[in-house]
Amino acid sequence: MTVRNASTQHAATRRFQALHVPGDPLVLFNAWDPGSARAVADAGAQAIATGSWSVAAANGFDDGEHLPRALAMDNLRRIVAAVPLPVTVDLESGYGDAPGAVAATVVAALDAGAAGCNLEDSFPADGTLRDTADQVARLVAARKAADAAGIALYINARTDVFFQKPAAAHDMAMVDAALQRARAYADAGASGLFVPGVVAESLIARLAAESPLPVNIMVMPGVPDRQRLAELGIARISHGPGPYRGAMQWLTEAARAAMG
Amino acid sequence: MTVRNASTQHAATRRFQALHVPGDPLVLFNAWDPGSARAVADAGAQAIATGSWSVAAANGFDDGEHLPRALAMDNLRRIVAAVPLPVTVDLESGYGDAPGAVAATVVAALDAGAAGCNLEDSFPADGTLRDTADQVARLVAARKAADAAGIALYINARTDVFFQKPAAAHDMAMVDAALQRARAYADAGASGLFVPGVVAESLIARLAAESPLPVNIMVMPGVPDRQRLAELGIARISHGPGPYRGAMQWLTEAARAAMG
Repeated sequence: MTVRNASTQHAATRRFQALHVPGDPLVLFNAWDPGSARAVADAGAQAIATGSWSVAAANGFDDGEHLPRALAMDNLRRIVAAVPLPVTVDLESGYGDAPGAVAATVVAALDAGAAGCNLEDSFPADGTLRDTADQVARLVAARKAADAAGIALYINARTDVFFQKPAAAHDMAMVDAALQRARAYADAGASGLFVPGVVAESLIARLAAESPLPVNIMVMPGVPDRQRLAELGIARISHGPGPYRGAMQWLTEAARAAMG
Repeated sequence: MTVRNASTQHAATRRFQALHVPGDPLVLFNAWDPGSARAVADAGAQAIATGSWSVAAANGFDDGEHLPRALAMDNLRRIVAAVPLPVTVDLESGYGDAPGAVAATVVAALDAGAAGCNLEDSFPADGTLRDTADQVARLVAARKAADAAGIALYINARTDVFFQKPAAAHDMAMVDAALQRARAYADAGASGLFVPGVVAESLIARLAAESPLPVNIMVMPGVPDRQRLAELGIARISHGPGPYRGAMQWLTEAARAAMG
């Protein structure tokens, strides 16, 4: 598979990478299709990120790689064509366990025009964590695939350490575990660290202070606001399924008013 | 092409047809993908209608049959699978001038699970009106295709008479023209008459009083409210691109707030 317009895409990735500034976070208000990407771009966004939960829901699927990969890639290609911004795609756990499967998914995403991607370290079936060595092999394969295509893909390595327990049970030992993974993922060629599920300021502060990679936090109830996340040294803030859920809630309420 | 679950689909169409009651209009808050269809269903909708403008925009295309038909049909199939309601699809002008092309599009829509469809009498390229005889031949082909499949498809014949002039220039002669078309379309096998663009109460009242088919009006600025449309004898109210535009406006504003 030949990646189209490799030099244009390379420039988009460099531009996207440069937006990750600890203390001045890139805010990604996640989109799910070309229309929602345009709506977010209209708000002045600097980049577009898809969220797998939203893309799956918009197409009538449950999250967890139930949406066929081909459909996700066609959607990505249309988003890239619709907005003049770098686009990063949520690839979940790469649509396959084997490093070769992850590499093939990364090539498909590059072919569709991605400037970045998320790759998570939990199993789609039950959300439990893969061994660190397993995920390292998968990230190495992803980086090699991008290098072979000649693209400086921004690989956002997501760790689901904090999704293993409810927020009330989070502690510093989980930060230790996440940082250990962050170091391994950095060595494997990851560009950033995505830690969804973490809420407490003290835990976020230590992650930002000690991570070898720029840290991405997901907005959810209890997470410090944007200003505070900036002060803590966060480089990227994403919104996950929030924008989709909000837009659909607006739609349900408007429909009820129209029919009521 | 074999239509799947013909008896289930037949029942859905009968149920959909029965919702068209002059004086107690069916309200369709138009959706564009499975997720938006679910959001509208969550509001208590009795049926789901797609709007071609919205489906095209969500996928990054302009309206007017620029969205590939295969993509529109795949989207329709997923909507039908996502909601336990009759689904009517906006087929624009049928993706082709020839009656045979319209028939093929209707068969594709039936195969995807449609209980109803809209077919318009203007040319996608410039919005001008086809000759009545031309549109009649196309509607006859659509009805024959549905009959051959054994499905009681609700064919909503749309006339774009009122889109030919701005609302300020609408007059009773245009109502005459629309009613003339309505009679011809009824004879051709249409189930309903869709008259988007008409705004004035006096014109809507006469359309409702004299149309041989249940009348569908589209909500737009200046159109009487639902209660008044009911009193005038309207059988169906649709919202066209309004719901999509509203949801995307919500998204843009929420994104601006998150990034601002």
